[in-house]
This record gives sequence, structure tokens and C-alpha cells, in this order.
Amino acid sequence: MARRYDSSTTTFSPEGRLHQVEYAIEAINNAGTSVGILAKNGVVMASEKKITSGLLAQARTSEKTYKLCAHAACSVAGLTADANILIDQARLRAARYAYQYQEPIPIENLVEHVCNYKQAYTQYGGLRPFGVAFLFAGYDEAHGFQLYQSDPSGNYSGWKATVIGANNQAGKSLLKTEYGVSKKDGDGDEMKTDDAPLSDVIEMPDVAEACRLAVKVLNKTMDGAVASAEKLELFTMSLDEAGNCVHKILTEAEAKAVIAEVDAEAASAGDT
Amino acid sequence: MARRYDSSTTTFSPEGRLHQVEYAIEAINNAGTSVGILAKNGVVMASEKKITSGLLAQARTSEKTYKLCAHAACSVAGLTADANILIDQARLRAARYAYQYQEPIPIENLVEHVCNYKQAYTQYGGLRPFGVAFLFAGYDEAHGFQLYQSDPSGNYSGWKATVIGANNQAGKSLLKTEYGVSKKDGDGDEMKTDDAPLSDVIEMPDVAEACRLAVKVLNKTMDGAVASAEKLELFTMSLDEAGNCVHKILTEAEAKAVIAEVDAEAASAGDT
Amino acid sequence: MARRYDSSTTTFSPEGRLHQVEYAIEAINNAGTSVGILAKNGVVMASEKKITSGLLAQARTSEKTYKLCAHAACSVAGLTADANILIDQARLRAARYAYQYQEPIPIENLVEHVCNYKQAYTQYGGLRPFGVAFLFAGYDEAHGFQLYQSDPSGNYSGWKATVIGANNQAGKSLLKTEYGVSKKDGDGDEMKTDDAPLSDVIEMPDVAEACRLAVKVLNKTMDGAVASAEKLELFTMSLDEAGNCVHKILTEAEAKAVIAEVDAEAASAGDT
Amino acid sequence: MARRYDSSTTTFSPEGRLHQVEYAIEAINNAGTSVGILAKNGVVMASEKKITSGLLAQARTSEKTYKLCAHAACSVAGLTADANILIDQARLRAARYAYQYQEPIPIENLVEHVCNYKQAYTQYGGLRPFGVAFLFAGYDEAHGFQLYQSDPSGNYSGWKATVIGANNQAGKSLLKTEYGVSKKDGDGDEMKTDDAPLSDVIEMPDVAEACRLAVKVLNKTMDGAVASAEKLELFTMSLDEAGNCVHKILTEAEAKAVIAEVDAEAASAGDT
Amino acid sequence: MARRYDSSTTTFSPEGRLHQVEYAIEAINNAGTSVGILAKNGVVMASEKKITSGLLAQARTSEKTYKLCAHAACSVAGLTADANILIDQARLRAARYAYQYQEPIPIENLVEHVCNYKQAYTQYGGLRPFGVAFLFAGYDEAHGFQLYQSDPSGNYSGWKATVIGANNQAGKSLLKTEYGVSKKDGDGDEMKTDDAPLSDVIEMPDVAEACRLAVKVLNKTMDGAVASAEKLELFTMSLDEAGNCVHKILTEAEAKAVIAEVDAEAASAGDT
Amino acid sequence: MARRYDSSTTTFSPEGRLHQVEYAIEAINNAGTSVGILAKNGVVMASEKKITSGLLAQARTSEKTYKLCAHAACSVAGLTADANILIDQARLRAARYAYQYQEPIPIENLVEHVCNYKQAYTQYGGLRPFGVAFLFAGYDEAHGFQLYQSDPSGNYSGWKATVIGANNQAGKSLLKTEYGVSKKDGDGDEMKTDDAPLSDVIEMPDVAEACRLAVKVLNKTMDGAVASAEKLELFTMSLDEAGNCVHKILTEAEAKAVIAEVDAEAASAGDT
Amino acid sequence: MARRYDSSTTTFSPEGRLHQVEYAIEAINNAGTSVGILAKNGVVMASEKKITSGLLAQARTSEKTYKLCAHAACSVAGLTADANILIDQARLRAARYAYQYQEPIPIENLVEHVCNYKQAYTQYGGLRPFGVAFLFAGYDEAHGFQLYQSDPSGNYSGWKATVIGANNQAGKSLLKTEYGVSKKDGDGDEMKTDDAPLSDVIEMPDVAEACRLAVKVLNKTMDGAVASAEKLELFTMSLDEAGNCVHKILTEAEAKAVIAEVDAEAASAGDT
Repeated sequence: MARRYDSSTTTFSPEGRLHQVEYAIEAINNAGTSVGILAKNGVVMASEKKITSGLLAQARTSEKTYKLCAHAACSVAGLTADANILIDQARLRAARYAYQYQEPIPIENLVEHVCNYKQAYTQYGGLRPFGVAFLFAGYDEAHGFQLYQSDPSGNYSGWKATVIGANNQAGKSLLKTEYGVSKKDGDGDEMKTDDAPLSDVIEMPDVAEACRLAVKVLNKTMDGAVASAEKLELFTMSLDEAGNCVHKILTEAEAKAVIAEVDAEAASAGDT
Repeated sequence: MARRYDSSTTTFSPEGRLHQVEYAIEAINNAGTSVGILAKNGVVMASEKKITSGLLAQARTSEKTYKLCAHAACSVAGLTADANILIDQARLRAARYAYQYQEPIPIENLVEHVCNYKQAYTQYGGLRPFGVAFLFAGYDEAHGFQLYQSDPSGNYSGWKATVIGANNQAGKSLLKTEYGVSKKDGDGDEMKTDDAPLSDVIEMPDVAEACRLAVKVLNKTMDGAVASAEKLELFTMSLDEAGNCVHKILTEAEAKAVIAEVDAEAASAGDT
Repeated sequence: MARRYDSSTTTFSPEGRLHQVEYAIEAINNAGTSVGILAKNGVVMASEKKITSGLLAQARTSEKTYKLCAHAACSVAGLTADANILIDQARLRAARYAYQYQEPIPIENLVEHVCNYKQAYTQYGGLRPFGVAFLFAGYDEAHGFQLYQSDPSGNYSGWKATVIGANNQAGKSLLKTEYGVSKKDGDGDEMKTDDAPLSDVIEMPDVAEACRLAVKVLNKTMDGAVASAEKLELFTMSLDEAGNCVHKILTEAEAKAVIAEVDAEAASAGDT
Repeated sequence: MARRYDSSTTTFSPEGRLHQVEYAIEAINNAGTSVGILAKNGVVMASEKKITSGLLAQARTSEKTYKLCAHAACSVAGLTADANILIDQARLRAARYAYQYQEPIPIENLVEHVCNYKQAYTQYGGLRPFGVAFLFAGYDEAHGFQLYQSDPSGNYSGWKATVIGANNQAGKSLLKTEYGVSKKDGDGDEMKTDDAPLSDVIEMPDVAEACRLAVKVLNKTMDGAVASAEKLELFTMSLDEAGNCVHKILTEAEAKAVIAEVDAEAASAGDT
Repeated sequence: MARRYDSSTTTFSPEGRLHQVEYAIEAINNAGTSVGILAKNGVVMASEKKITSGLLAQARTSEKTYKLCAHAACSVAGLTADANILIDQARLRAARYAYQYQEPIPIENLVEHVCNYKQAYTQYGGLRPFGVAFLFAGYDEAHGFQLYQSDPSGNYSGWKATVIGANNQAGKSLLKTEYGVSKKDGDGDEMKTDDAPLSDVIEMPDVAEACRLAVKVLNKTMDGAVASAEKLELFTMSLDEAGNCVHKILTEAEAKAVIAEVDAEAASAGDT
Repeated sequence: MARRYDSSTTTFSPEGRLHQVEYAIEAINNAGTSVGILAKNGVVMASEKKITSGLLAQARTSEKTYKLCAHAACSVAGLTADANILIDQARLRAARYAYQYQEPIPIENLVEHVCNYKQAYTQYGGLRPFGVAFLFAGYDEAHGFQLYQSDPSGNYSGWKATVIGANNQAGKSLLKTEYGVSKKDGDGDEMKTDDAPLSDVIEMPDVAEACRLAVKVLNKTMDGAVASAEKLELFTMSLDEAGNCVHKILTEAEAKAVIAEVDAEAASAGDT
Repeated sequence: MARRYDSSTTTFSPEGRLHQVEYAIEAINNAGTSVGILAKNGVVMASEKKITSGLLAQARTSEKTYKLCAHAACSVAGLTADANILIDQARLRAARYAYQYQEPIPIENLVEHVCNYKQAYTQYGGLRPFGVAFLFAGYDEAHGFQLYQSDPSGNYSGWKATVIGANNQAGKSLLKTEYGVSKKDGDGDEMKTDDAPLSDVIEMPDVAEACRLAVKVLNKTMDGAVASAEKLELFTMSLDEAGNCVHKILTEAEAKAVIAEVDAEAASAGDT
């Protein structure tokens, strides 16, 4: 019955669904997984590189993570060609904001701009939705480090830890049990309070812990194989002493070290 | 038989119906419920947060309620990405009006502007209706506190108390029996008179009573579960001593207190 | 057989019909009834309010009748959101005319402008007709009080008394027997003459009589129930001593009085 | 077989026909009949008013006949809303011509302009043809009184006497036997000569005779009933002593007189 | 099999055909025939008037033949409304050329302009081809008298004698045997030489002979009946002593004379 | 299976083919053949005139070969109306280039411009490809005489000798065995070398030889009949003593001489 | 099941695939193969020329490889007409960048520009994707020699060696075993390290070796036959002493030499 309503982006099905948007999300669910984790002193994003070949040239910068401006970056799951268009939009928006107001763009403002752009492709005729989901990592003075996720519909939401791409459900449920459990009990639902900074309430991981957690999640979401340094890209954002935002893609050596720690931890714990 | 007419927004069915608009309304009927109640000294809007996860970042502002200008706010049911577009329109309109006429925009003027914008998406080809309903709460000097509801067709109407989203029928019938019954008899149909201010005629609830009533309604519309502080967002608008409009999202602690009062009341009354 | 030609507004069926326009008219035939009656000293429009709820806020102005300019108003049957667009057009046209020519717009000029706007939506691709019918009441120096009716096709015509919306046929046949019968015999077909003012020839009702007649018609067109003051909106337009056009929505008390008179009359006549 | 080619105005059927245009003509064939007759001292157009009701307001001007400029008028059969658009075009054209060249527009120039406008709606996508036929009556110095007929395709032709609308075939065949027979024999085919003015060759009727002939034709084309004064509109165009073009809609009294004469004539002739 | 490709003007069928163009040509093959013949001292075009009625007004100018500029005219077969658009284009082009270059437009330049305009309607979406064929007669200093034929595809070619419209094949084969046979043998295929003026080589008819030949052709192409003066329009273009191009529509008397000569000739020859 | 993908120019079939382009090529394969041959001192193009009639006017210029600028010409196979549009484009481009850079346009630049124009009609919606193939003959200082062929897809390539239109395969295979065989052996595949001018390596024909070869090819591709002077158009481009490019269409006499030589040669060789 | 979603470029299939893009890729998989290999002192691109004929004119420049600017070139597989459009875009972009910033465009910037252009043709209605894949070879100061591959979706990636066109899978697997194996073991997956220049880690081939490897790959991908000098085009890019980028298409003699070396090597190794 769904058939009649799914070939056009501009019509609702009788159940009030937009099939094209759902199919675009399907495109993302087959894409390489990306994990984002908010740490108390930064943000970590880890992505699986689906295609690896010895013949691929060493990427000059990163492959799945893109710097948007001095204080924001994003990780991509889905059609790379579509993502490039949106990344250009985001960079343009950030630069224009900085030029116009002479201060860095607030992260949510940047995210919403990209998402409004996406939304238009779900409502007007002769277009298809963008087949790409994003994790946005950023830092601004008002809200510190932040992590957002957006999907082809143009929805977005802020997360402490989340997963996009293949097997994201499995990844999310692992995050639920592993994230922030050290200081409080394992029940993730109890973590929210109102006024205190988040890091005072739960034991947020630091960047190093977040890296290990991200690798554990990728281990789970990647089919069969254990994550190897060359199949994943680990990105961290943190502040240096001067208060500047530091974007860092871990080298293979550093990534291997993180993987080794995760393996050791798993071995000592006797589980995977 | 309805099949032939429902895939295009620009055609009537033989019965004179616009199926796409009805399907968009269907999209809203699956969305989180929002209750709006006009109080004698303010407006209350209570919304169910459908998705809750310990991993979701604490929303910086509110999640379901959006400030439009100093004296107006709205609550959303439906596709968030669509809502963002309309909220931007509303904010722009309010700001332009204030700039042009040097006085705050009348609430109905603001509501009609958004609704005319919506209407266009039901009449022109290559577009789909916006899949979002709104509650608008506002205050202006001419008409005091006001509450409006709009749907994807671009229709809107003023209410003393109303519900949008999932199970809105159940919510409305509860409101009918519970709203404004203290001073007069239980027959809601008798409440209207012509010239006297509304609050003189019926015993309009004050903001605190309205909050409790809103929670009672959400208790009824939410499937099975009783409302918990983290699943709902309570918004109040009132005037401070200086006559300024105060927008307030209740903290979890405050929300819990309201819920406790509702529970106590229900227990003592032995019903719910 | 009608099926092939009805999903597009821009094509004729083999019988030369425009199905979309007919379906739009269908939308109106399910809408609340509006009665318009030309009186010798004014115009009366009475409308049924389909949706009534004790929770609806008291409309700030009127609900079914809209002032277009100082000397014209309209009553609406059909999709309110569509009507708003056309009412805005009419107000704009009236204001521009007044500004450009420094005199009030003739009523027929105003009506034709709205109807030409409607017509375009029946002839161009990618559009649907407006799903709304209007009664226009107005006064100008050349032709005195006037009453027009328009439908989604863009047709309009002047009437002494007419009905739009649900059960308009029943309403019209009542009007035929009741309107203007006091001075002449009951045969409505004989009323027209050429040169004399209309009020000289037939005993046109005055505004009070027209109000009662309108209520009688609504009593007939509304399903089962007798018209109650809160379900109808009575609008009168007349001239004050200074010759200014007075728009008046009857208060509930005034409306109740009219209804009581109608009931008394019916009781004494022993019919209806 | 016609089915495949008839839902789009822009395609020919394999037999080289434009179905949409033919369907639009069908719409006209159900409309009220209009008769046009060229007299030696004027033009007569008589139209059937399909909808008559005692409740219809007395038309301020005419109902089926529209003045286009000082020396041209038209009579309409088909969709009134469509006609209004074209009449506006014609008036605009006439006024612009007069302004630009400082002389009245030649009638054929005016007719061709309207017809070219119509033609476009039969050739471009996303449009439907205008569902309206016209009789154009006019006078210019070069060619005296003229009568044209146009149809939805944009074709037009000059006539001495013609009929549009319902039963136009019956009307035309009556005209053929009755028009201009007084001076010559009854064979209409022999009337044309080359160089002499038309009125020298055949006994063209004068305006009064043409009125009677028009009523006789309407008597034949109207279903069953005999034409009554209130169901028809008689228009005459002639020159006054100053050489100005006089547009005149006969009053009901005058129309009744014409009808009476026709009836008397028929009675004396013993046929109808 | 042709069915899939014939409802859109912009697609080729698998055999490389454009069905819409072929259907438009079909429309022309049902239209009144036009014959064009190049004479040594002019051009003759004779057209059948399909619709004749005693009620038709005497055409002020011609009916099937249109003057384009001082030295060019055209004859039309097909949809008159379509032809009017193209004739306007041609006149505009001729006038602009004359204004811009201060010399008369060469005939082929004029023809090509009209044909390029036609071509666009066979290649772009949302359009249909023009359903009209033309004979263009013209004179310019470079090439003397010329005769062109164009069809809905935008093709055109120069002819010494040709026929468009109904039964054009029959007409062409008669022309082949009758045109230019007086000086040379009856084999039309041998007529072409390279450098000498055409009139030196074959015995080109003079205008009078061409008129008679054209009537003979029409006699053949018109169904059953013999051509009568009122059913045909004879046009001649020639030069006067001052070298100006003279456009002439034969009067009925003149046409009758030509027909009589043709009949006499046929009678004496004992054939038709 | 091909059916689903062939009615729109903008979609690929599952095998990656563009059916509309292939159908357009089909249109060309039924058109009159054109042969192009590069000679050591010029270029020869010979075209079959498909339609010949004694009634056709002697073409003022050529019929199948068009001069584009002083140093380029083209020969056409396919829809003439389409070709006219592209020839206008080419002439415009050549003239603009000459005006802008004050030197003649390089031939390949001109060819590529036309082909890019063609390509657009294969990629955008609402258009069909041009149904025309070209042979371009030209001369520029950099590359001497050149011969290009283009098809509806917008592809083009340079050739020493090639055939377009009906039976082009048969023509090409004849060219393969006959072109340039005098100096080297009959194996056409061995002719290419790198650095030496083409004429040094193979015995390129001179213009007279190329004319004879072209006629031989046309003899083969034309159905049954042997080429007669009036059914073919022979075009030669060469340089005069002043180095100017000379365009020449052979007169019938000259063409007959060439045909006679070919026949004589064939007779002496005892083959056809 | 795939059928419903493959005829429009703007819709996702339920599995989240864009069929039109996949079909465009299919078009490329039938095209002539191109091999690109990054050498330590340059880049080599070798392409198969699918169509070879002795009648084809010697290409003035290259046939499958196009210079984009002083430091970038590309090799094409797919529809040549489509490629021309994109090559023009690339050249324009490179020239504008150089003009605007007064320095050569970075290679990846140039590649991304072309790919973003391609992407638009996969997302907007009324368009088809470009049916062409590219190898981009370039040099810039920041990253030295680079090799990119792009496909119709607008995706691109950097490679050390890759193959596009027919049999690219077979070619890639040969490259995997043969590229860079001299210094390290044959396991291509181990080649990547982080910080050292690529040429320090693996034994990258020099340009001569890369040419031989490219020929070996083409030998494998071309159906049956062994590569002959006239069926392939060998392109090398390297730096001269002045540091300028040298583009070179090998002459047939040079190409033959390379092929001979490859054959000799194969013979001595006893394998193919």
C-alpha cells in the first residue's frame, strides 16, 4: 500500500509519512558508522572507513570528518557527494556569520542552518532529500562542547553520545550502558538534572576515555571484524591552553594505541 | 475511491476534500501531545516529549516550546524540521512588524501570517503541506492573553483550552468537563457571554491551576504511563509587576511538584 | 467516465465540464450555511457557526463575516484558510482603489476583482480552485445596498436574497416564497420591473424583518436543530444619520431576541 | 480511441484534432443562446438568460451583453468567469489603441486581439482553452456595422447573422431562410456580390425587423418554452444623428412589445 | 506500436519519427486546398473556401490569402487561429527588417524566420506544433518571383507549382503533367537547367494561364463539385509599370470568367 | 524491456543507454546520404537529394550544403528544420569569434560549439535531441583542411572520409577500400603515422579524385538507382591563389561530367 | 521491484539507492578503459581508444586525455559529449581561480568543483546524471602529484593507481598485485603509513615503470586482443628542470617501444 506515495517527495502517505525521506534514511543505514561522544574536556567522533584499498591515496586531510570552522566539525554518513554540498553550505554560513557579527557562530545556529537547507529538499517538487546524516561537534562560549545529530528530514537534536550509519541501534544501546556510568549507577535515564553543569552530575568521560568508548562501539557495529587502525578515523576536539579549539585526527599509531587499550581492557574484563 | 485524489496537493476529491492536507494532519496525530490552557493571569502550554534518552543532551532552551517574540510563544506537534521553517517565518514577521510600526505585533496578526504561509503549500503544485500543528500563546494590550491553534490547512482558531497531537480528542473531552467549572455549572456550552471580560463570567483557572489541569490532560493522552517530569515540558506565560511578558519553562523540580499535586488530588478524589 | 478528467484543473471533460471546480463547490456545500438578504435600508447576512465548543475563545471580532472596507463586508462558506487569502486580496484592492481614485470602490468592481483572482486558479496548471464561496454585502452611492454571491469558478451574480453552503437549495426555496411577499402576491417571478427603484415595486423587508427571515431560513437549513443564538452570527449593514455605513454583529442577547420573535411568529402561524 | 489525446491541450490526436478545444466548445453548446443580426442601420444581439429567479437582483447594466468601448459590444455564451477575463482584455486593448493612435480601434483589430489571446491557451502546456464564445458587434468608419463570432480555438469570422450557444444549428438554419429574403428570393446562397454595399443588394432588415427576427430565432432554440421578456436580453447598436454609436438594452416593456409583434406575426402566418 | 511516442512533441519514436508533427500535418490535410503557381510575370495562389454560407459577412479583405508586406503574401491551410499568430510574426519580421536595413526583406529570409519559429514548437516541452501549412508568394530583386511551401515541422522548400491541404497529392500530380508543357515535352523531370533564367528554358505560364491551371487543380481536389466562384479565392501578384508589387484578389466576376474559360477549354478538349 | 526508458531524454536505461538519442540517430539513418572526403588540396562533400520533382524551384543557393563562414561549410542529414537552428548557431558563433578575436575561428572550436549546443538537448527535461547529423568541412591555418562528423548526441570526430545518412555503413566500407590506396597497399588500417603531414604518407586524393570517389560511394548507398546529376549535390572547398577559401557547388553540367568519368572508370574496370 | 524508482533521478528507491546514477555508471562500464598510475616523479594515464578506423583523421591533440590547465589533465570514460561540458567547466574554474588568487588552483579544489557540478544533476528534477567518469592527474606544491577518480554521482577519491571503464575490476586487481611491490612485500594493504612521504615507504614506480604497468593493465582489460600502439593513448605528466609541469602524449613510436618492453618482460617471465 505504501507504493503509491513513495516516489514523490512532496506528498504524504495516508498515514502521514514521507516515504522519500525514509528511503534516504535507508541509504544512510547502509553507510559507514560514525560515533560521537561528548567528553568533559572535548568531543570525540570515530568513523568507520567502509572502502579501504592499498591503492587509495593517503587522504590529505581526513576522510569522514570535515572541519567547518575554527570551532566546529562534522562527521558524515551517507552519500559523500551530497555531503559535500551541505558542508560547503555550512562553511559559508559560519564564515558569513563571523564576518557579519564579528564573533564565532553558535553551534546550534550553524546546525539549524544546515538542517533548514535540508528540509527544503523534502518539501518542494523536483528534488530529492539529501541522502546524508551528520554528527556535528562544536564548541561555543555559551554552551561549551556540544554534539548534534541530523538526518535527511532536517531534524536535529543534541546528544551526549550517539551513533549514525550502519548498525546504529546496536551502537546506541552499547552507549546507553557504557556512557557516564562511573560516578552514578548504570541507569542512563536518571542522569538529567536541571541547573548544574552536566559534568558535575555524571562522571563524563574525558577525551581519552571517550576515544576508547567510541572504538568499543565501532567494534560492535562493524560486521564481524574488529576495528583496525586503518579502517577507522578518530577525531578529537578540545581546547588548548590559550582556549583555542583544537581539531585532531589521530595518526595510525595513536589509533592503534587506543585499539590496543580497548583490547586489553576487554581481555581483562573477559568480555567483548 | 479516495486513491485517485490523494497524491497531489492541488486537487479536490469528488467529495470536495483535500487528501494531502488530511494526511498531513494524520502525521500530527501521531506526534507528541501539546495542551494549551488560557488562565486568568497567563497562558499554560504543556507538551509531551516523545523521545527521551539518557544520551540526549540537555536541551539548551526548550524542546517543544519556542519563543517567537517578547510576547508570543508557540508549542509544536508534528515534523520538527517543518516547524523550524514556520517558526523562523513567525519570528521574522514579529520583528519586522515591531520595526515597522514601533509596537508589538497583535497576536492574531502573527498567527494569521503563519497560517497564510501554510495555506499556500496546500494550493500550489510541487509542494506538500507543512506537517505541523501549532499552539500559539501570546499577550497583547487589546485582547490580553490569547491561545490559538492552527493546523496544516492554514486554518486557525482561538481557544480557552485545547489539545493538539496524539489523542487530542480524549484530551479535549477532559478539558470540556474540567475547565472553568468551579464558578458555574459543568455545562461548558453555557460559558459564553457577550460583553463582559471572560474572567468575570467563568471562574478561569489561575496559572497554577492551569498547570495542574494540563498535567491531568497529558496523563490521559499519554499511552498507559503517567506523566513523569522528564517526559513533559511545562511552559507558562504571565506578566511581571512591570507589565512585561514572562516566558518560563518549569524546571524538573517544579514540574515534579505539579505532578505530585495532581497525583495527590487524584488520590484524594479517588479517581483518574 | 468522469474519472479521466477530474484530477487536473486545466482540462475540460468531453461534456465541457471542469470537474475540479465542481468538486470545490462540493466542499462548500458541506460548509456552514450563510444567508444574505437585501433590505430596503440595509443588508443582512446570517451565518451558521458549524463548530461550537465551550472551549473556543470568544472571537474578538466576528467569525464568519469579515469587513472588507468601510462600505463592504463578506460572509464565507468553505475553507477558511482559502478565504483568508481572498479577503486579504479584497481589502488590498479596496484600499488601493480608495488611495488611487480618492473615492470608495464600487461594490461590483470589488467583487469582480476577487472573482477574476479566483478564475485564474481554474485555468492555470499546478493550482487548485479556491474552495470558498462568498456573500458580499456593500453600499455605494451609485447603486445603494447590494448583495453578491460568488463561487469557486469565479462566477458572481447580484441577488436580493440568497443562500450559500449546506442545504442552500432548501434555503433558497424558502426565500422565494417569503421574500418581498407583503406588498405583492407570492409569485416571486413577477417582481422585476425596469426603471423604478426596487423598493418602490416590491415591499422590500426592512433590516429587522430581514433578520427574522434570515433566521427562519437558517432554521430550515440547519440539520434538525433550531438555530440557537450561539450557533449563528447575525450581521447587519445600514446607514447612520451621517450617511456612514454601519457594520454590526448582533450580540447574543440581540440574536436571542430575533430568534424569540421568529419562534413566536412561527407559533402564532402554527407552521414551520 | 479519442481517449489518449484529449486530456492535454498541447497535443494533436492522430486525426489532427485538438480534443480540449472541442470539449470547450461543448461547454458553450450547453450555454444560453445568443443571436446576432446585422441590420442596415445597426446590429442586434439577443441573448437567452438561462438562470432566472425572482431573487436575482436586477442587473445594474446588462447580463449577457457587455460594452467594450464606445463603438463595440459583445455577447457571451459559456463560462462567465472566463468571459470576464477576455472582456477585460478587449476593453484594455480598445482603450490603449485609442490612446496610442487617437482614433477608435477598428472592430476586426479588436476581435483579432481577443482571439490571439484565446489561441495561446490552446497551444501552451498547463493551460486550458477559454470556455467561452463571443458575438462581437461594432461600428467603424471603414466598414460600418459589423458582426463577428469567435470560439475557444481563437477562430473568428464575420457574419450577417449567426447564433452561438445551445441549439445554434437550429437557429442558424432558421436565419438562413428568414434573413434578407424580402427583396430577393429565399435562396440565401445567392446573396453575395462583390462591389456594391451589402444593403444595396439584399433587403437587409432594419433594426426593428432584426429584433423581431432575433426573437423568432430564440423562440426556436429555447427548449419548449416561448421566449418571455424576462428570459431574454435584447441589445441594439445604432447611430444617433450626431453619428455617435448608441448602445441600448431594451427595457422589459420594449422587449414585451417585440415579442407580442412576433407572436402576432406568427399567428397571422399560421406557423412558427 | 506508435502509441507510446505520439502524445509528446519532444520525443522521437523508435523509428525516429515525431508523431505530433505528423498529426499536425494530418490536421492540414483535412483543410481547404490551396494551389500556388509561379508564372513568368507573377505568382498565382488559389484557395478553396471550405465554409460558405449566405450568412457569412463578405470578407473585408481576403479570407485565405494574407498580405505580409508590400512584396510578399501567404495562403493558409489548417487552423486559422494558429495561422494568425504566425502571420503576425511574419509581418513583424518584414517590418523590422525594412526598418533596420532600409530595404525590403528577401523572401527566403522571411520564410525561414517563420519556419524557425515553427520549429521551436516541435522541440520544446509543453507546446504543440502549429497546425498550419503556408504557401508564401513573394518578389525580391535578387530572385524575382518566388513560391515557397512550409509545413508544421518548420521545413520549407521553393516550388514552381505546388498544392497544400486536402487532396494535395492529386493536385500535385495534375500540376506535374500540366505545368510548363507548352514549350517542352510533357516530362516535367527534364525542366531543370543550371544557369539560364527559368522562363527561358521552359514555357512558364503567364499569370492568366496560371489562374486557369490553378482552377483546374482545384476542380480536381475539391470533392465531387466543380469549383464555383464563391467557393474559391484567386490571388495574383505581379509588377505594375513602376515596378511595384501588385496584390490582387479577383472579384467574383473575374473569378467566374476564369472558371468559364476553364470549363470551355475542358469541353473543347473533351476531358475534365 | 527498453520501453520504460525511451520516452524521456533525461533518463538512462538500466544498460546505461539514452534511447531518445538512439531514436534521433534512427531519424538520420533514413535521411539522404552525405559523403565527405578530405583531399590533399581541399574537401569534397557530396549529398543525395531525396526529394526531386520537376515542380521544385531551382534552389537559389545549395540545398544540402550550407556555408557557415568564409572558411567552413556543412552538409546535413536529417530534419532540415532542426538543422536550420544549428546552422544559425554556427554562423553566429563564427561571426562572433571573428569579431571578438579578429581572426577566423578554428574549425574544431566551431564544431565543438555546435556539439555542446546539441548535448544540452540530450540532458535537460522538456527537450528532444536535434534529429540531425552534420559533416563539417573547413580550413584553418593551424590544421589545414579538415572534415568532422557530428551526431545528435553531441559527439563529434575528425575523419579523412566518412558517410552520414542512409546506408552509411555500406558507404564507409567502400571508402575504407578505396580511399588513399594508390600510394600504399589497400589496408586502410596501416595509414596512420605520427609526425609527418598526412599527405606525405598516403596518396591523398586531389579534389577531382575525391569527387569521383564520392560519386562512387553515393552510387552504392542510393537504393537501386545510379546517381544522376539532379539527384546529387557536389560541393568542393579549396584555396585560390590568394589563399582564400573557395566554396563551390558543381553545376549540373560539371556534375554530369564527374558521373560520366565514374561510369567510364567502372566500365573499364568491369565492375560497379 | 527496482522498476518503480529508476526512471527519475530525484527519488530514492526503498533501499535508499539512486537508480539513475547506477545506470549512468553502467554507461561508463561499457566505455573504453582508462588506467591512472601515480609515479614517484609524475602521473601516467593510459586509455583505450575503442573506435579505430583508418578513415579517422589523426587527432590534432589527444583523444581521451584533456589538458585542464598548466598543472592538471583528465582522462575520460563514457559519453564524450557529456565530458566536453564538464571539461569546459573545469578549465573555466581553473582559469578563474588563477585569475582571482594569482596562484594555480589546488588539484582537489578543481576536482571537487567538477564533482559538485555533477552532483546537482543527480538531485534536481528534469535532469539526468552526466554519463562520464574521470581520472584527474595533477600537480600542486602542497601535495605534489595526485591522481583522482570521479563517477557520475559526484563522488571522488584519491588513488595511487586505479582503473575506470570496461573491465575496471580486473584492472584494479592486477594493479593491487603489481603496484609498488618491489620494495615491500606483495600485500598492498600494508603500504600505508602516516607521516612519511609515500615515496619513502613503498617503492613507487617511476614514470617509465608506470607506463609499462599501465600497458599491462590495458592488456588485461581489453577484450581478447593485446594492446597495439594505435589503440591506446599514453599520457605522462612530470616536472621539467624549471619545475614546470610537462604534459606529454606518447607518439606511436614511443608507445610501441613501451608495448615491446612489456611483451619482452612478459615473455621472460613466462606469463601474461
